[in-house]
Amino acid sequence: MAALSNIGLQFPGNLRDAKKKNVVTIGEFFRPSFYSPRNTNMANDKPRFLLVSANYDDSPRKMGTAKKVNVNGVHVAEAPLQAGKLANESAADEAIVTSLRGRFVEGKFVYRQIFCIRSYEIGPDKTATMETLMNFLQETALNHVTSSGIGGDGFGTTREMSLRKLIWVVTRIQVQVQRYNKWGDEIEVDTWVDAAGKNGMRRDWIIRDHYTKEIITRATSTWVIMNRQTRRLSKIPEEVKQELVPFYLNRLAVPTEEVDCEKIDKLTDDTAQRIRSGLAPRWNDMDANQHVNNVKYIGWILESVPIEVLEDYNMTSMTLEYRRECTQSNLVESMTCPTGRVIESNNNSKNRKPDLQYTHLLRLQQDKADVVRARTEWNFKQKQQ
Amino acid sequence: MAALSNIGLQFPGNLRDAKKKNVVTIGEFFRPSFYSPRNTNMANDKPRFLLVSANYDDSPRKMGTAKKVNVNGVHVAEAPLQAGKLANESAADEAIVTSLRGRFVEGKFVYRQIFCIRSYEIGPDKTATMETLMNFLQETALNHVTSSGIGGDGFGTTREMSLRKLIWVVTRIQVQVQRYNKWGDEIEVDTWVDAAGKNGMRRDWIIRDHYTKEIITRATSTWVIMNRQTRRLSKIPEEVKQELVPFYLNRLAVPTEEVDCEKIDKLTDDTAQRIRSGLAPRWNDMDANQHVNNVKYIGWILESVPIEVLEDYNMTSMTLEYRRECTQSNLVESMTCPTGRVIESNNNSKNRKPDLQYTHLLRLQQDKADVVRARTEWNFKQKQQ
Repeated sequence: MAALSNIGLQFPGNLRDAKKKNVVTIGEFFRPSFYSPRNTNMANDKPRFLLVSANYDDSPRKMGTAKKVNVNGVHVAEAPLQAGKLANESAADEAIVTSLRGRFVEGKFVYRQIFCIRSYEIGPDKTATMETLMNFLQETALNHVTSSGIGGDGFGTTREMSLRKLIWVVTRIQVQVQRYNKWGDEIEVDTWVDAAGKNGMRRDWIIRDHYTKEIITRATSTWVIMNRQTRRLSKIPEEVKQELVPFYLNRLAVPTEEVDCEKIDKLTDDTAQRIRSGLAPRWNDMDANQHVNNVKYIGWILESVPIEVLEDYNMTSMTLEYRRECTQSNLVESMTCPTGRVIESNNNSKNRKPDLQYTHLLRLQQDKADVVRARTEWNFKQKQQ
Repeated sequence: MAALSNIGLQFPGNLRDAKKKNVVTIGEFFRPSFYSPRNTNMANDKPRFLLVSANYDDSPRKMGTAKKVNVNGVHVAEAPLQAGKLANESAADEAIVTSLRGRFVEGKFVYRQIFCIRSYEIGPDKTATMETLMNFLQETALNHVTSSGIGGDGFGTTREMSLRKLIWVVTRIQVQVQRYNKWGDEIEVDTWVDAAGKNGMRRDWIIRDHYTKEIITRATSTWVIMNRQTRRLSKIPEEVKQELVPFYLNRLAVPTEEVDCEKIDKLTDDTAQRIRSGLAPRWNDMDANQHVNNVKYIGWILESVPIEVLEDYNMTSMTLEYRRECTQSNLVESMTCPTGRVIESNNNSKNRKPDLQYTHLLRLQQDKADVVRARTEWNFKQKQQ
């Protein structure tokens, strides 16, 4: 397990400032500090959520007091239990934990959470939207961290990161969707992490039909560490690495040959085919740090996609490259251009040849600075399985 | 239980046309017909969702084939079971059903669903948003209907309504919020229905802390029946009444003296203090019928509320009066005006005296037609319990 979550909820600062400082431009990790443990004096308080309870404490001064246990061969902190409760309620408790918050499977290498697609999570075509899927990815990543026993005082940071004022930032995420679920469908989201080069971390997800285990969605993302005060990138300190390594799992959600690691071209006024200006963040698009929640960018990207495409095609793949934060006062332009790029794929992945492909850019209206670059692929709906 | 849900997802047509036809102006009930039963041939299919499975069938021709059982003293259809499964899995199954979809409690009078506040359901102030609460209300109402055994071929319609092409439309909803929950909090939403006059139905909700049972939110709504083809209001046919009556529960979520039944004044260019124009529906604001989802209206209402209020106050009460549909091509104006109205309350409800009160209007920009009238009340955050 590792210390990130909330994929790219906000960004560290001005892209151009960042460039001057010779740091890469990336999405900063969401890190409110409001999370507190449930009141243990409550009359009806039941310790149902064993796996998560250890990490609800947002007080840095308590870090390091948790009991150490062996996880995947390495000693890490364990969530405290309240004795005598679990024996009586284990089946129901585990079911609730699994369905409401998720739990570890495969030792402590994979974190799994079940979701039932809700009525308000489907879009105009009556299936779960890409935003809904992204929300599920974010939620499982956060619960993974919270449940791991290594969590620090920020959402997704480890104890050793918190001590050093380090945060995770997401640089890129790729999501491949095989099919979109309907209202009432039950899906399970698996997530895990691995090293990405010397100073990065990869987080992957697989979404399956909870009953048939058919794979519905694959996703992969790349994260680096930043100092939350200096806004400069940091190497992963050895102490942090020691926290993360026990959770690393060498497994790819997206097969190597399908990973979209190509540069996403920057659209300009000349190259963009469609430009939608004047997009204004709504109050509820903001996250706890008054930045636009990264999932909201998807809605803006769709604003410059032709309505016929939204109606007749399914987005089968999306790659987002996060480059700059966006705040309440910013106006945003959404730009889209069809591209002819065809993904070379082998026989095992022939279903990934898209009918349409687009390049997108979200930029600040005022100074044209990049916010998000994106590439999407679409298949005609009737053709989808 | 009764046959409505999805509180006011869309509207039947033009307000002024409706007036000409001498029908009241109301919100139409969301009624996609895509919902189908899980494939019972699936290898791993498990009948975990006993309470809901009977109603997944969207085929009208199959209506009336379900086994009848006694519910609250009246015979209604029962969801089919698969024998031999529940004995082994009852505790875990019930826990998953309860947490993922909800279940009946208190006989079949009250439907209850547990929610865990997710990371993406909180707003800039780190607590669940009013939209999130409204989504929970919608979801439990829908699951209530789906689980009741009287469901027809539309979301929330009964069999007898479906046979007559009748749908539910919401006219008004009032939500009182005692406090807003944080990420990770577990809440339970209870919902039930009752008669409202001769040809209406009332749906109420109570949201409680799942552990302490503290009441967090109370809500009440009024529904009437409309012919989905003629768009005219209808009396409740006797056959429909017979379906609904077994589920009626004479219990008020909002105490009589706190029910906001006063007319909401229509704001004009002269009376509105703040007007925010040019609000455009995003693709994902649309529901399955290409109308703006009613929960999205809240976001638009907030667009004309001063930012200082959004930052420093909690919305403690909201009354929405639905008047006209809004589609993708409409531009909307959000208007707000502070009002001096003070709610007279007795000693038992002194915590409902608001610090601020506003009147709102959402109207179509083109012809100034009302979409939603609203009244909100706000308390300074530090004063909230």
